[in-house]
Amino acid sequence: MSTRFDLVGLDADDTLWHNEPLFQATQAEFRALLARYHDAAWIDERLHAVEMRNLAHFGYGIKGFVLSMIETAVELTDGRVSGREVQAIVDLGRAMTAHPVDLLDGVAEAVQALAVDHRVALVTKGDLLDQEAKLARSGLGEHFAAVEILSEKDEAAYRAVLRRQGVAPERFVMVGNSVRSDVLPVVAIGAQAVHVPYAVTWVHEVAAPHDEAAAVFATLPRLADLPAWLAG
Amino acid sequence: MSTRFDLVGLDADDTLWHNEPLFQATQAEFRALLARYHDAAWIDERLHAVEMRNLAHFGYGIKGFVLSMIETAVELTDGRVSGREVQAIVDLGRAMTAHPVDLLDGVAEAVQALAVDHRVALVTKGDLLDQEAKLARSGLGEHFAAVEILSEKDEAAYRAVLRRQGVAPERFVMVGNSVRSDVLPVVAIGAQAVHVPYAVTWVHEVAAPHDEAAAVFATLPRLADLPAWLAG
Repeated sequence: MSTRFDLVGLDADDTLWHNEPLFQATQAEFRALLARYHDAAWIDERLHAVEMRNLAHFGYGIKGFVLSMIETAVELTDGRVSGREVQAIVDLGRAMTAHPVDLLDGVAEAVQALAVDHRVALVTKGDLLDQEAKLARSGLGEHFAAVEILSEKDEAAYRAVLRRQGVAPERFVMVGNSVRSDVLPVVAIGAQAVHVPYAVTWVHEVAAPHDEAAAVFATLPRLADLPAWLAG
Repeated sequence: MSTRFDLVGLDADDTLWHNEPLFQATQAEFRALLARYHDAAWIDERLHAVEMRNLAHFGYGIKGFVLSMIETAVELTDGRVSGREVQAIVDLGRAMTAHPVDLLDGVAEAVQALAVDHRVALVTKGDLLDQEAKLARSGLGEHFAAVEILSEKDEAAYRAVLRRQGVAPERFVMVGNSVRSDVLPVVAIGAQAVHVPYAVTWVHEVAAPHDEAAAVFATLPRLADLPAWLAG
């Protein structure tokens, strides 16, 4: 076993399992709830603004999303939203936390193959309980030598991961669907990154084009192509 | 430097800094908001029931608490709670996330003294973002060799901490205010525990008396007494 990397980091949401479609489906139900007050585009715009305002206080994940939907509903109805409608929004969130984990095609085999030759870490951001529950339900847990759940994926957070894991940046490769979170900060600290695009990207995770141009990273169509790329 | 322990784990909320009073003060404001609907005792009882029901979905911490207050308000007003009242509850939560960190007496000196002779880890449960933010604001960060934020403090979680940190149970001591979370599961896996009681305990953290009787652990009045206990 000789490899270029001492640690392979894998993102979770929309890299191992589908996630953004669940948020988008929930947002569609939220839109339907407020349809008699406003049109879809304006609801989406206000919800996004509230989410961005709340990130620093409530962080990523389902609970912060639910609180942002509630605040948006109060704002867009000028306080006329009913208790039952608020309860319906909380129920949308509870349903999200219990949603089955749906792996992307070929992921189970790819992660298993990677773990034969590499030390593999799950490196994800979001809500601690929710990410742990998804990992447990995914059936992939045994393949990960480490699990790093971060509140933010920036350069400092990746440096702290490598310090904890005792790995030099040039011996680390991060793999994920978000150029903003999985690629740019990783390349910036001297590690390598592989972008595996997902069909849809949360608008907050879209990197500015000039950021992308400056970074050198690989792009693979599917996680299933990663074992061959690492061997090559 | 010769000590009995390779790792000293310190709980955070109500061990290093005041926490439960902030939840209790917020709950008092919540009670006031619903005072025209119900008496205080019934509001407290229903809120506690909703919190327990939500723990598995939303976990510990401020966001789960806010969602539980909102659901309780809908239930106790039979859906008549207004959008403005719901917004007031969300605002209570946002204020909690921004609340200053208030260290217990003697904690700053005690943690500094401990870190001279010991590898000290923060071992806390709750919301990732919120706990990280409190640690950053506490000014204690530099003294911790490791930070373990857990979604639950049970035997499996403590075993995972020791595995990650490479420490044998008999070389680990955990220190905290909760017999249920900081003492019993630690003693159960063969490590040692020190109970430092806090003035008030969240009802969920109160251990059943027969659980306590079976476990052998030390009790210290203040964290400031810990360096001398470890040296003795």
